[in-house]
Amino acid sequence: MSVLEFQKKLNEIESFGGSPYFNVVEAQTANSKQLRKFGSVVDYTSCDFLNFSSHPEVIDAFIASAKDFGITTNAAQIFSGYTIYHEELEFELSQAFSKSISLFPTCTHANLSVLTSLFSKGDLIIHDEMNHYSLFIASRASYAETKIFPHNDYAKLELILANSNAKNKLVCIEGFNSANGNYPDIPLVLSICKKYGAKILVDESHSFGVFGPNNLGVCDFFGVTGQVDYITTTFNKALGSHGGMLAASQVEVAYLRHLCGAYTSSRGMAPPLVAAALKAFKLLGQVDGNNRRLKAWENQRGALAKLSFIPGKVVNSQTLGIPFCLDVAEAELPAKTAELIRSGVLVSSFVYPSVPRNGHRIRFCITAQSDLSGIDKIASLMSR
Amino acid sequence: MSVLEFQKKLNEIESFGGSPYFNVVEAQTANSKQLRKFGSVVDYTSCDFLNFSSHPEVIDAFIASAKDFGITTNAAQIFSGYTIYHEELEFELSQAFSKSISLFPTCTHANLSVLTSLFSKGDLIIHDEMNHYSLFIASRASYAETKIFPHNDYAKLELILANSNAKNKLVCIEGFNSANGNYPDIPLVLSICKKYGAKILVDESHSFGVFGPNNLGVCDFFGVTGQVDYITTTFNKALGSHGGMLAASQVEVAYLRHLCGAYTSSRGMAPPLVAAALKAFKLLGQVDGNNRRLKAWENQRGALAKLSFIPGKVVNSQTLGIPFCLDVAEAELPAKTAELIRSGVLVSSFVYPSVPRNGHRIRFCITAQSDLSGIDKIASLMSR
Repeated sequence: MSVLEFQKKLNEIESFGGSPYFNVVEAQTANSKQLRKFGSVVDYTSCDFLNFSSHPEVIDAFIASAKDFGITTNAAQIFSGYTIYHEELEFELSQAFSKSISLFPTCTHANLSVLTSLFSKGDLIIHDEMNHYSLFIASRASYAETKIFPHNDYAKLELILANSNAKNKLVCIEGFNSANGNYPDIPLVLSICKKYGAKILVDESHSFGVFGPNNLGVCDFFGVTGQVDYITTTFNKALGSHGGMLAASQVEVAYLRHLCGAYTSSRGMAPPLVAAALKAFKLLGQVDGNNRRLKAWENQRGALAKLSFIPGKVVNSQTLGIPFCLDVAEAELPAKTAELIRSGVLVSSFVYPSVPRNGHRIRFCITAQSDLSGIDKIASLMSR
Repeated sequence: MSVLEFQKKLNEIESFGGSPYFNVVEAQTANSKQLRKFGSVVDYTSCDFLNFSSHPEVIDAFIASAKDFGITTNAAQIFSGYTIYHEELEFELSQAFSKSISLFPTCTHANLSVLTSLFSKGDLIIHDEMNHYSLFIASRASYAETKIFPHNDYAKLELILANSNAKNKLVCIEGFNSANGNYPDIPLVLSICKKYGAKILVDESHSFGVFGPNNLGVCDFFGVTGQVDYITTTFNKALGSHGGMLAASQVEVAYLRHLCGAYTSSRGMAPPLVAAALKAFKLLGQVDGNNRRLKAWENQRGALAKLSFIPGKVVNSQTLGIPFCLDVAEAELPAKTAELIRSGVLVSSFVYPSVPRNGHRIRFCITAQSDLSGIDKIASLMSR
């Protein structure tokens, strides 16, 4: 869509009583928001799955670190050093993943770093079509050839690999897919990669912290963390902070930290965000974290049960983001979303190009502190 | 350099008494750091030019916002909304720049957003060779043709434009260049762009907050803010926070905010970082900010005077980052840097590919609270 076409579209969206996008939040709790335009709503947009962003101990760690080291690292870390908080978080994560760790200001930077520094012209990078934007952008920036297979379609993945003469091949997939509510068969993908000598990257942004025996994500769930070459994640979902990381081999992490522009030319994570992520990561393995995780999954099952009575295509979600495809035309989705907000529930609505054409959907994110009563309102509205 | 070649190189660097890179910082003040390996050092790596990262009022704003809204926005802002802090910072910046504003988690995201959403295959993006990494990566990811001209060489820039048949052309330059210590003749670049119908992007990351009558950067200094299509900046230099922004036309900002993956698929700036940036931006225009800025420039002149007695190529810096090219081979720079740290001064040392081959240099960043006594130590060490 051109900029001018967009302007016309935006005018249309505004015309049906207010855009459902970019609401100004005047106040919030863990499960509700006070929106300037629509008043109080139950919030189903939050990916702060364990509600650690407002956890008192996490906030305390965040504040203490700001007092010690200020708000931001004051230059790129290769020169200006990194704090004892950075060192401790890298250590804790390296113990958990049994890999070397590098922290990045965002997971986008981590993905850019791996793909642009370790792959280049002549190489092949293969993506699941539902991968996160940052992996596609990184792939384009690497100058490697980019190919795409349909979501979780392993036969198509194998076909691409079988037909490639590239020496260096990388397969990029996600752990939890936040728009489809499912996860890949990673052992099967690993066996295909092994057969064709391809490396594998798994972005665990939505699964890290809430899945697997050690809470590390889908690779952990399948017990294959050690076989995956590159694991990336954000800290802004389960850990309630901001920033990202790469887990990889010692020599590759050292190489990226010294020579990759996405690392050496960018600030490190701000110390308070590191301290918050560190505290949340420790809580993950304790009673508090365990209780929150159990409650989040209980809420997810409760939400699925309520949604099953609504006409429309409810995805049989295996994740804490529960997509629901509405029986409305794509063009009507913004109006339907605004109607939901007016009735007191805030949801995310995805349209093309975030999801494939005609794959438009709304998403309910469920957290440990979700208020499920809002889903009854949705059920009543949707059943009309 | 391949990963294996790097491992050999790293072993060499470690062999001369410890790498000067990635120092663990155990404690710090505005102008010194306590390094685990090297003890206490005077710090010349900080780009926290006005030392706002440790300003009590900035820290207070940071903490208050975390208590109101938690540590992070809890999803992409298009769905989950943005806080009154985001709204106020966008408003203040839009008044200052007389443009529409969008906040991004980092300036890398802002640069990615403009280049990948508004330019594509068949377009031409032209870069100054000293541009920041993020602009080159964004250019590659746009699929547009990328061309590069030597630093501030306007004749070469014009030659590239004169020989292009591309319909959409974009020239990307920086305000302050942090590795060369100078800034471009933006009115001249604008006249060239106008002649050939090219748009222009200026990344003011190092100049925003410390230069120009309204403290907005080099475009502001030349009085041409209104003629520049896209201005981007980070908030992690003069504002002492973290995050970035784009200033552009209303329709283009709205377009990016609705349709660009670098915006819609990434978290917004964390509320505490927004609140800190907002407080620092307000302080810029007050007596406190003005005094800090005057002091920073006074310190810069003092540092330049002291450095002038050192053999080697001191750049006649026009910025607060003062590069100094050493008369040593590139391979010896890490050892020289480690020697400086052992003598009690922490500096940044740039080697290829951050700077052109044989353009290796050390950089002294000067802030409002810099301790200039450390430069005497450097002078004594360098004169040997």
